[in-house]
Amino acid sequence: MIKLEPAALAKYIDHTLLAADASREQIATLCQEAMDHGFYSVCVNSGQVPYAARLLAGASVKVCAVVGFPLGAGLSDTKAFEAQRAIAAGAGEIDMVLNIGALKDGLFEVVRDDIALVRQACGAVPLKVILETCLLDEAQKIRACEISRELNVAFVKTSTGFSRSGATLEDVALMRKVVGTAVEVKASGGVRDYATAVAMIEAGATRLGTSSGIAIVSGAQASDSGY
Amino acid sequence: MIKLEPAALAKYIDHTLLAADASREQIATLCQEAMDHGFYSVCVNSGQVPYAARLLAGASVKVCAVVGFPLGAGLSDTKAFEAQRAIAAGAGEIDMVLNIGALKDGLFEVVRDDIALVRQACGAVPLKVILETCLLDEAQKIRACEISRELNVAFVKTSTGFSRSGATLEDVALMRKVVGTAVEVKASGGVRDYATAVAMIEAGATRLGTSSGIAIVSGAQASDSGY
Repeated sequence: MIKLEPAALAKYIDHTLLAADASREQIATLCQEAMDHGFYSVCVNSGQVPYAARLLAGASVKVCAVVGFPLGAGLSDTKAFEAQRAIAAGAGEIDMVLNIGALKDGLFEVVRDDIALVRQACGAVPLKVILETCLLDEAQKIRACEISRELNVAFVKTSTGFSRSGATLEDVALMRKVVGTAVEVKASGGVRDYATAVAMIEAGATRLGTSSGIAIVSGAQASDSGY
Repeated sequence: MIKLEPAALAKYIDHTLLAADASREQIATLCQEAMDHGFYSVCVNSGQVPYAARLLAGASVKVCAVVGFPLGAGLSDTKAFEAQRAIAAGAGEIDMVLNIGALKDGLFEVVRDDIALVRQACGAVPLKVILETCLLDEAQKIRACEISRELNVAFVKTSTGFSRSGATLEDVALMRKVVGTAVEVKASGGVRDYATAVAMIEAGATRLGTSSGIAIVSGAQASDSGY
């Protein structure tokens, strides 16, 4: 197993709070923790972007907004609009859920057009495409990665954390294999400790979406200290 | 217990399919069932509205679209945009999720402005405001109903079906008490049989959101036949 220092590991982490009833206080804590630990971003619902962006003004922590979340079943133009508005409000990354029903139906042009519209709305802002791997078979996962790669998105991402299950090492490895080095891979859902985090990175993840970032970097610290 | 004939009971029902991975075939079945049984509407994600509206063209079954669903944590202008686009695509009713975090934080102006913006986008199209009662205390439920009533929305609705639990008789009765007769009440989440459906109506519900509409009207039939 590779070894990662806390500060290095922190840069992999999108510090995440997406609960429907997240309070301002919880969002403020999330932002403070992200600054304290040097996480890459905070990942929040689009309605929280204005508040989080204000709290993080001048800090190096980005605001990452989810779009069409968590079902991915909204109208494409609405997803694009949400991305555009979140960016205008201060989001520096967008995590969209693809059209899962269309993918499973084999309507690949629908899947592509949906992602392409959001991609366009994002401009230079990195777009991550959430596959919700737990609902897909292997061929569907591969196709989603191929479409995402063709559209030059920044990342493919495993999971919303709101469906049946989250990231697996197998899915991360498969996604990495399909997208090659042109697209990054974000593992999310169920990444709760240092060992899992490192295993995901070894499998090919270059970003981790988790609400357990502090536990993860503490695990790195413990590993450093020989605990 | 009151007794309702199947045809009368069917008119209470929003025949609902909101799964992230709903297929075209499942949506087509939903629409056909709604026509066969005389349900009030089909309730679907906004991305399914164009397809459902095409299938139901000329039928008396409405298309009901959910907005900001199921977290209610998106930007207000995005919710309003989604409502507008869903209506343009053929939705005849809109079910929005209110800003749950803001409600719990006591930011009532934020809650109000969010609903008001969607209300404005809906124009003459009936708007239902989903409270997600399982996440709220009694004072928050009351306040949400008061705000909804003041904004002249068509319905308050208990639940998304995607959170911890669904409608309770107590919540439906409370909501009815607060909104009086000016606003209707939709019970949703966990309404799966005839007895529960009738109990919800007796408690004050004038609409039921359920994926068990056929079982419910079959129960009415069984009750008719003296089973």
